[in-house]
Formats: sequence, C-alpha cells, structure tokens
Amino acid sequence: MSSPVHRVSLGDTWSLRMNPDIESERRAPSFDVERLTNILDRGAQNTALRRKVESIIYSDPVFNLQSSHFMTHNEHYEAALHNRFHVQKLAQRLGWQEDGSEFNYANRALSGAVGLGLQSIFINTLKSLGSEEQIAKWGPLCKTFQIITTYAQTELGHGTYLRGLETEATYDPATQEFVIHSPTMTATKWWPGDLGRTATHALVLAQLICSGARQGMHGFIVPIRSLQDHSPLPGITTGDIGPKMGINHVDNGFLQLHHVRVPRENMLSRFAEVLPDGTYIRHGTAQSNYLGMLVTRVKLLLNGILPNLQKACVISLRYSVIRRQSQLRPSDPEAKILDHQTQQQKLFPQLAMSYALYFLAISLTEFFQQSYDAVLKKDFTLLPELHALSTAGKATISDFCTQGAEQCRRACGGHGYSKMSGLPTLVTEVTASCTYEGENTVLYLQVARFLAKNYLQAQLSPTKRKPLPQSVAYLAMPDRSRCPAQMAADFLLPELYVTAWAHVATRLIKDAAQHVQTLIQSGADQQEAWNQTTIIQVQAAKAHCYYIIVKAFKEAVEKLDREPAIQKVLKRLCDLCALHGILTNSGDFLHDGYLSGAQADMVRAAYLDLLRLIRKDAILLTDAFDFTDRCLNSALGCYDGNVYERLFHWAQKSPANTQKNPAYEKYIRPLLQSWRAKL
Amino acid sequence: MSSPVHRVSLGDTWSLRMNPDIESERRAPSFDVERLTNILDRGAQNTALRRKVESIIYSDPVFNLQSSHFMTHNEHYEAALHNRFHVQKLAQRLGWQEDGSEFNYANRALSGAVGLGLQSIFINTLKSLGSEEQIAKWGPLCKTFQIITTYAQTELGHGTYLRGLETEATYDPATQEFVIHSPTMTATKWWPGDLGRTATHALVLAQLICSGARQGMHGFIVPIRSLQDHSPLPGITTGDIGPKMGINHVDNGFLQLHHVRVPRENMLSRFAEVLPDGTYIRHGTAQSNYLGMLVTRVKLLLNGILPNLQKACVISLRYSVIRRQSQLRPSDPEAKILDHQTQQQKLFPQLAMSYALYFLAISLTEFFQQSYDAVLKKDFTLLPELHALSTAGKATISDFCTQGAEQCRRACGGHGYSKMSGLPTLVTEVTASCTYEGENTVLYLQVARFLAKNYLQAQLSPTKRKPLPQSVAYLAMPDRSRCPAQMAADFLLPELYVTAWAHVATRLIKDAAQHVQTLIQSGADQQEAWNQTTIIQVQAAKAHCYYIIVKAFKEAVEKLDREPAIQKVLKRLCDLCALHGILTNSGDFLHDGYLSGAQADMVRAAYLDLLRLIRKDAILLTDAFDFTDRCLNSALGCYDGNVYERLFHWAQKSPANTQKNPAYEKYIRPLLQSWRAKL
Repeated sequence: MSSPVHRVSLGDTWSLRMNPDIESERRAPSFDVERLTNILDRGAQNTALRRKVESIIYSDPVFNLQSSHFMTHNEHYEAALHNRFHVQKLAQRLGWQEDGSEFNYANRALSGAVGLGLQSIFINTLKSLGSEEQIAKWGPLCKTFQIITTYAQTELGHGTYLRGLETEATYDPATQEFVIHSPTMTATKWWPGDLGRTATHALVLAQLICSGARQGMHGFIVPIRSLQDHSPLPGITTGDIGPKMGINHVDNGFLQLHHVRVPRENMLSRFAEVLPDGTYIRHGTAQSNYLGMLVTRVKLLLNGILPNLQKACVISLRYSVIRRQSQLRPSDPEAKILDHQTQQQKLFPQLAMSYALYFLAISLTEFFQQSYDAVLKKDFTLLPELHALSTAGKATISDFCTQGAEQCRRACGGHGYSKMSGLPTLVTEVTASCTYEGENTVLYLQVARFLAKNYLQAQLSPTKRKPLPQSVAYLAMPDRSRCPAQMAADFLLPELYVTAWAHVATRLIKDAAQHVQTLIQSGADQQEAWNQTTIIQVQAAKAHCYYIIVKAFKEAVEKLDREPAIQKVLKRLCDLCALHGILTNSGDFLHDGYLSGAQADMVRAAYLDLLRLIRKDAILLTDAFDFTDRCLNSALGCYDGNVYERLFHWAQKSPANTQKNPAYEKYIRPLLQSWRAKL
Repeated sequence: MSSPVHRVSLGDTWSLRMNPDIESERRAPSFDVERLTNILDRGAQNTALRRKVESIIYSDPVFNLQSSHFMTHNEHYEAALHNRFHVQKLAQRLGWQEDGSEFNYANRALSGAVGLGLQSIFINTLKSLGSEEQIAKWGPLCKTFQIITTYAQTELGHGTYLRGLETEATYDPATQEFVIHSPTMTATKWWPGDLGRTATHALVLAQLICSGARQGMHGFIVPIRSLQDHSPLPGITTGDIGPKMGINHVDNGFLQLHHVRVPRENMLSRFAEVLPDGTYIRHGTAQSNYLGMLVTRVKLLLNGILPNLQKACVISLRYSVIRRQSQLRPSDPEAKILDHQTQQQKLFPQLAMSYALYFLAISLTEFFQQSYDAVLKKDFTLLPELHALSTAGKATISDFCTQGAEQCRRACGGHGYSKMSGLPTLVTEVTASCTYEGENTVLYLQVARFLAKNYLQAQLSPTKRKPLPQSVAYLAMPDRSRCPAQMAADFLLPELYVTAWAHVATRLIKDAAQHVQTLIQSGADQQEAWNQTTIIQVQAAKAHCYYIIVKAFKEAVEKLDREPAIQKVLKRLCDLCALHGILTNSGDFLHDGYLSGAQADMVRAAYLDLLRLIRKDAILLTDAFDFTDRCLNSALGCYDGNVYERLFHWAQKSPANTQKNPAYEKYIRPLLQSWRAKL
C-alpha cells in the first residue's frame, strides 16, 4: 500500500538520494507507520483513495504549486481559481460524487490553494437553515456552479456579536418582497470569502423586520452580480477588501446593499417564515439561525485548521534532524538540533498537540453527527452541549494550532522566516482561524456561560438536578483535594492526570462562580457581576478546554488496544500533552495545594523523560501524517531531507534573481557616483 | 511645541473632524502628554528636532508611504532604495551630520522602509573590530556611498553558533593576501541584508587560517560587485534569498566565494593581526571579534525592535475605543471594546511592557556607553556583564515585543488581519528579531551561563568572592522565604514586587545549579549535565530577565519625582508589568510557598484594579509616543479615530479593485456556463 513515490515527487535531481541524517531516523521503526496513517485516515481504504487522488492531481501538469512562494496577491487569486476550475473538470471527467471525499483529498493535495471555498459554507448553511424546497432549488444551482455563492454575515462594524448586525431585511407585503439594505457605512458586509471579485449570489444575514417588528438575524439569498456579464446588479456595491496577512488566494470582499429587493421565498425558512401578509412564524428557537455557523465551525477543524499545525510539525521536525548546531561534547561532530533538549521542548509538545487535537476534532465530529440530524428535525435537546463543544473546540484548536505553528516556525531559526520554508504561509493562514467564525475570547466566554450554568446544576442535590451533559459530568464528581502521586512515574497514569485536569477546571469554574456571587452580594446585578469577572471566566473555560483535550486523547489511545506498538507511542504523546499543560499552568495546580512543589518537580521529571523517549519516534510520527512534498511545499520539510540544496535552488527562481534590478539605474548607480560630483 | 498637524496628516477629507469616541478619551488628561513625549524623546529639544525632520519629510512629495500595503516584493525593495536615495539628497542639502539624530528621525518618519540599513552595521563593526587606519580608510568610503556595504556572517548551514562557520580565510604569505573561500554549499553566506542585489563590499566573517593553524572567526572586507557596472566580481556568486515573512524591502542575499583574494590590510585588526610572514598576533580575547555583533544588538533595541510594539499598542488601543461590541447592560448602547475587561487584559500588559522595555533599553544603552569605550581600549573588565546584559536585553525585548505585537493584532479581531491595519507588517517584522543577531534560546543559555557562574561566586564567603556585577547583585542578598504581603495593596509596593522577582530568579538559578550538581554526582561530566538541564537553565534566565525589566522600570519611575502626575501614571504601568508577570508565572511563585494561594489571589485583585485605573489614561499613554499617522500607516490607528472610513476608502485602492479581474474570462465565465453544455 505504501506509495513513497508521492513523498519524493518534486523532480529535483537530488531527491534520488536520501539525506543520511533523515534516513537514520527511519531505520528501526518501533511501530508500523503505514498502520498509523490508516488510523489517521480512518481506514486503509481512505488512505488508498487519498493517494489515488493525489497521484491523479500530481500527474496532471495543469496543476503547479511550486512557484506559489513568489506570487503576488492577484496571482494567488488567479491560481486558486485555476486550480478549482481544473479540479472541477477532473471531477466531472472522473465522476466524483459531490459529497465524496475526493474533493477534500484534492484540496489537501493542492495545499488548500483552491478557490470557491465558500460554496461548501453556503451549502451547509442552506441545509441547516433552508426548508426542503429551498434546499431542492438552490442546492443543485450552487453545486453545478450555475451560480457562485458566498456567505455574507460579518460587517465592517460587527463581527462575532451577531445581535449587533445592522443590515436590514424589511418585508414589503405589497410586493411580497424583502428589501435588503445597508443603513450605514458600518453595515457594509466585510470579509466574506469569494465575494470580492467572484460570487454571483450571497447568503446575506440580516435583521428581519416585518410589520414593524424586529425579529433578529435571518438568512436571505441575494443575487449580486449579473450571470451575463458579472457586473454588479442594481443597488449592489461590491469589491475586494484588500490584501491580508495571509490567505490572499481568497478574495474577501465587501458588499453594500441599497434597497435591494428579493422575493419572499429567498428567506431561509426551516426555523422561521414570513407569511404573505407579513405574519412572522418561528419554528425553532431564537438561536436556531446560528446553526449554520455551528456547522461551519465543526467542519473546518479537521480539514481547515488542524493541517496547518500538522504540517508545521512535519517541516520543523524534519529540518531539526538535518540542521546541526554546536557540539554536545567537545570531541563530537555538531549535534542534530533535535538532540538538544530545548529543541525537543519546543517541538514535541506541538507534535503531541497535533495528535491530541486530531482526536478531539474526531470526537467532536462524531458528536456532531449524532446530534445534528435531531436538531434539523427541531429536537433541540443536545443543542446546548453541541454549541458549547463546537465553540470550545473551535477556540481551543485554533489557539493551539496558531501558537504551535508559530513555535515550529521559530524553532527553525532564520530559515523558518523564509517563505520557501512554507512555515510563514502556515502561520499566517492559521492565525486567521482565531478570529474567523467567532473571535476566540467571545467563544471562551460562551463556554464559560455553559460551565457556570452546569456548575449551578451540579450544586443541586442529585434528586433535584437534571443530568449533566457528558462533557461536564466531572462537575458532579467527588473531588480529591490532593493529588495522590508519590513519584514521577505516577504522572504517567492517564486516570491521574485526567483527574488533575478535572480538579483544576472544577476549582476555577467554582472560583469564577464565587466571584460572581460575591459581587452580587455587594450590590452588583447579574450582568455587572459577569462583566467584572470575564478574565476569570476565560481562565476557567480554558482549563475546561484543556481537560476535554486530554480526555479525548486518553480515550482514543485506550481504544487502540489492538495496535499495542502504536498505542504505546501515542500514549507517550498523550502523557506529554497532559504534563506539558500542567507545567505551563502549574500555578493553577499549586494554588490550592492540589499539587505540592515536590509533585510539580515530579511532573517535570516525568516530562523530561518523555522528551527523551519521544525523540526516537519523532520523525516517524510526522511521516504518519503522510503529507506529500508538493502539499508541504517547503524547502525545509521534504521527505528526503535535502534542505540546503532546495533552499539554494529555489531561491534562484525568485523574481529578485530572474528579473532586472529595478533600482540599479535609478538609485544605486547615481548614489555610487554622487561622490564624484563633490570632488 | 505641540504639532497636531503631524498627527492628522493623511489628507483625507474626514480627518478634519475627530471621531467623538476618541475625542472624549483626551478630554480630561491626568498628565501632560507633551511632557511625557519629551521624556521619551530624552529632551524637549529632541522632540522639536524630530518633528522638524518629520515635517520636512512629509512636506516633500517625493516620499509616499501610503500605497505600501499593495506592493510586491520588487516594489518594496525599489521603494526603500528610492526613500534612502532621497533622504541622502535631503541630508546633503540640509547638511545633516553623519552621526546626528536626523537620520534616525527620517527613518522613523518613513516607518523604517529605507534601504541600505546595513551601512550602519558595517560602520559599527568597523569601529569595533578595525584598527584606527582601517576606520580612517573605509569609514568615509562607506559613509559617502563610494561603496555600498553589507555584513556577511550567517551561512546557509550556521547561524548563532559562530564557531561552526565554514567560510575560510587562508593567509598566503607569498602574495600577502587572504584567500576567502566557501568550501561547501552550507558555507554559502545566507541572510545578509543589502547583499542580494545592492552591496559592492561585504564584511565577511570567516575562519582565519594562517600557517596552517585555525585562529577562529575574523572580519575581512571583500569587494563583491564591480563599481563600474555592478556585476559580480570574479569568484563571486551572489543573489537574493527570495521572499520572506516580512521585511521584504531588504534584499537579504547569498554569497559564495571561490578562492577570492583580498590584501592583508583587509582583515580587521583591532584585536588581532597577521604579520606579513603569517605570524598571528592576538591583541584581545578569543571573543573580541564578537564585539561587532554585541554593538548591533544594543543599537537595534530602541530604533529597530521596540517601535513595533509601541506602534501596535497605539493602533490597537485607538481602535479599541472606536470599535463597539455588545452591551454591558441591556439598556446601554454597545460598549467600546476597551471597556471590556478581557480587552484590557489583552492590551494593557502590552502597553505596560512597551514602556518597561523602553526604560530597560535606555538603561542598557547607558551601560553600553559607559563600557564600550573601555573595551575598545582593550580593558575587558566590564565585557562579561555587557555581554550578558545585551544578550538578555535582546532576547527579552524581542520576545516580548513579538508576543505583544501579535497580541495587539489579534485584539483587533478580523480587521487586525487586514494589511491595511498596519499590524501584520509590524508583527512579521518584529518576529524576525527573535532570530536575527542571535537566536533567543541560545542567547538565554548564554545568560544562564553568566548566572550560573555568578551564582557559584555568590555562594563563596564574602571575603573570598569577587564583587558581583550589579545586575546580579541580588544573588548575594539575604533571601526571604515568604512574601510579607498581607493585602492586595501591598503588591503595589515596588520594593515588594522587585524582591519577589529577585527571589524567584534566585530560586530558579539555584534549582538549575543543583540539577547540574546532582547529575555530576551521578556520573555525568560538566557538559553532559549542562545539556540535560538546558530547559531549566532557560527558565531561570527568563526569570532573571523579567527581574531586570521590573527593576529598570521601577528605577526609571523613581527618577521622575519632579513630574508627579507622569510618575503616578507610569507607576501604575510598572505595577501592572510586575504583577502581570507574577500571574502569568504564578507557579514559580507558589512552588516553594513564597506566595500562598491567598496571596496569589491578592495579586489578581490588585491587577484587576490596575486595569480599571489605567483605562482612563490608555489613549493618552499611546499618544505620548507621538507617532504620526503616516508613520503608523494604519487604517485602524490614526489619531482622529476615523477607522471605518479609512478601511473602506483604502480598500478601493487595492489592485484587486483597480485592475481587471484576471480570472473572469479564463475561469469564472466558463465555469458559470459549463452547465449549459450538460443540458
């Protein structure tokens, strides 16, 4: 099944030989890398299909990734549409199913530099908020690109706080139309992808007004560009919002609507509808129309956010066994930098996190699959937990992937600053995920509200309280006041560290609740008390998030009992993840004496030992992600380890070297000769 | 003296009116902003001179910053040389002194987008390592641009570990020349600024070999491009290393030398020389030739690294009083986001740090000025401390500025991701400083060695030990085992928190030393023991660095007793800086019971109270940096607060809006029409 031909596929002459410094890392594997790849792909058949798609893409000369490091803003945009166009042609030729995995694999093969990504967000939202008739009408139009769609929610003046959105949709019973309008400059839709220069239709989120009453945010399908000549339709002002820190292949855009009329049928009406006479009927809760965003948050974890950290780990770890620096002993040659303890400290927690977050995302996705259909059928029982989990998952995965990718980049020293390392692109792409689809601090506060509510439930006597959602069941567990560990090895017991995290999360949630209570007792109202404790609330929510990471990882490892070798190596990563978190937040564990100083030292001893143990499997653990060289697009991170040759040869292709120096005649020569004038 | 005209100078029609949300922030200042500006400029006469230079630059239509957000790699390079060329012409016309402040102020006015920055590094190194004759010969050639210079130290395969540099300079007594040679691909010089397409002469750092013996790294002046036609000279292969995460106006380059010969006089010979017959004579220590780098490290703190954080604070704080989000109470309008506790938590520690690091950099610069002349005269007494302080200062200032600038960027939500916010440029520029001029982890380890040595000294009886350098005098102080604070207000006593930091630094240094000792007792040799404790060593070094930050800030505040209003507001920032550090590292303070859990809660209470107090001065504290709108080049951060208007109008100038869509005819139209083919 193994297809190493994909891994070394850049066509460089030197890729025919492996750098011995990376070859030696693969010589005596302690586990079957291919099996781990299959696990990560969720089945050997998926690995095979993925490689088949990759091989089709890479054998088609129409696709070319390599020069992307030298592209301008415009060129990135054009290349992404080029790729999408050709993927679409491939898909037609090969008969790929619209919902099949092939599209995902093609995206992955092309490092995500594929245009029209908003199509899937439009479709997911349509499925979540649209009636069956609307899905039947708009779904096929969108999927076959008879229209090109975007999702227009965020405004110039409002992002995560959706109640503040200013765009209005006023129902006019005389014509049975909605009048969609941007009443202020800050109401301008701002940020939607594919909007700037591409989309023909926008799913516009706007405040519904019927019969003079404001009914909150609803979704409306609005044609914005002519299907004949692509010019903006009457009443539409639209364009690109300009260059960003990254993701410049996407044309994020702006949209102003000047009394634009759409028929009554264009309001998505699964959870609410407007009758011809303007009567408003709600079928769901006030929050139902946020469901589209919830779906998007869950879907982007595995394919959108996480690969950035995984790739950063691959690149930085491979580079770290090629790069050598200083001698560990005077007589030795310079050591691989990965043999330095400080380099392990930088990278192994990221590697552990890239696995931990993968298993968290899988467990979230599974929970989502269980509960989403019920919600669509208007059974909202699991919605609060689904909301809390997806919010926690998005915030925590985007935060750790961003921190981790930047950590990996910096661990590559100067070369990590070169675009050709591939790392700047990963970092600037993933950091956007901390803000898009909900700013993380706001999301942590939403998690905190869920925790505060359930904490109060847990305080009720067992007979009086509702059963707690499974993710917060620990709030009702009997709590130890001291960690029982007596030696470093005790901290390798998963039950022990999961319990430690549950304890800290519980204590901080309790601490936050007590602060609120104290403020209320001294005269503050509920909202004031909340506002004055948000820093503490966020801290509590983050501890809860770390708990669910560790718990999901622990449970995933336990399930691997038929793969003992893989289980062993992943358990080390799970241990490292838990202990690294304890060390980084040791104050939270020491504060109430749950850990003593001596126990904190044991954690450190266990942690240092784990670094040493993980060292020998590190490269294989990154190989298991099975990213192709083309997909990594990194001079530092190729499978064969020929780092310096690629850096040197790729640099030669930079326009700075292939084009004439624009400054020589204009500035350099006059400057060099100006002293003669002074003679 | 105040010149608001500089602040609102972008020529937009709406800048004639202030946004009332920012105007209200300036209405009742609790201190004299102009006086604080004078303090930061180190004298009112400097403020006046700076504003005069700014006014000259901004009134000269030849300079234009505004479009830089839309530039390509080549355009950035060309614009920087354009700016440098015209600054040079200005300077000639106005008779600016070569060592005067005008050049610095011009650079600041132009946001550092000014070419040929390596000139000053060349000159500083020449002054540090060159003989008086060499300084007299090369200095004027460089300053008048008869030659254009670069500093070529880093290689493809070696950075901070200078002993590993591979470039060789072999002395040939037959011709009295050095043969400079790159023996391997990894010996290729890689990264020097201005090298890629511009410099005519390189100061090449190479391993000196004379009479067969290797003498370590020395500096050699090597002509690399023709002064006639700028083509590479024989034996020289050079070019640009390609695009980077940021700083793309600088042409970082590569250089391979193939047996290039330079005369004996071209080796910089203040600290070592080679006689005509090849005899090697050392006048300094083995480390003397690192002095050039030490000077560079100190010089770039105030003008190179720190302004990135200061500007990020200005932009993000100004934006935070314009942006409104969610209601603090149901009946209120949406609140300024700066009134949310979590936003204060993100930004005020950065604001405090931007002041703290300023005062640290000033105190380092003063110490440097005291000791540098002595070193040049070969009195090396203060060199170890100068080295440790400059290393600690560079690592810690670059780390905190990088973290802080990114924190500020993210605190602006989605708009912080737009290049037009100015924040991505600041972040991608400052993050380079964690790696250039010495990778920070390596630098922390150098600090740790200095600390370990002095810790051992401090253990000797007072009669036996040498006096400790002032920056580590605390290692010999009597230590309390418990913090005496009894209530939150006690943590506002500078003596108390400086002592707390000294305690933690001492404990961690001792902890590291004991770990080394334990390993040696169990059979490890000195180097092995060091290698196995580097994580702990770095932790100790960072605590020491935080101590020197807090101490420098405290001392600077104390000196302001003739400015009580300014002293009061800066003391709050100093308190916040100290307490934020304690909270972020609370485990280090709780570990041995120096702080109890109850005391940690007091720290938090004091900290939350400080956030509230700093709130009302926040905008004025950023105004005091006195950055002009042009220099900030940010749609979010202008003095007048007209954020949304600028975002909207600047976006219209993006090439994505002014140029034809390259993808419409090629991909979008065919895609939209392809379904017809299927009918």
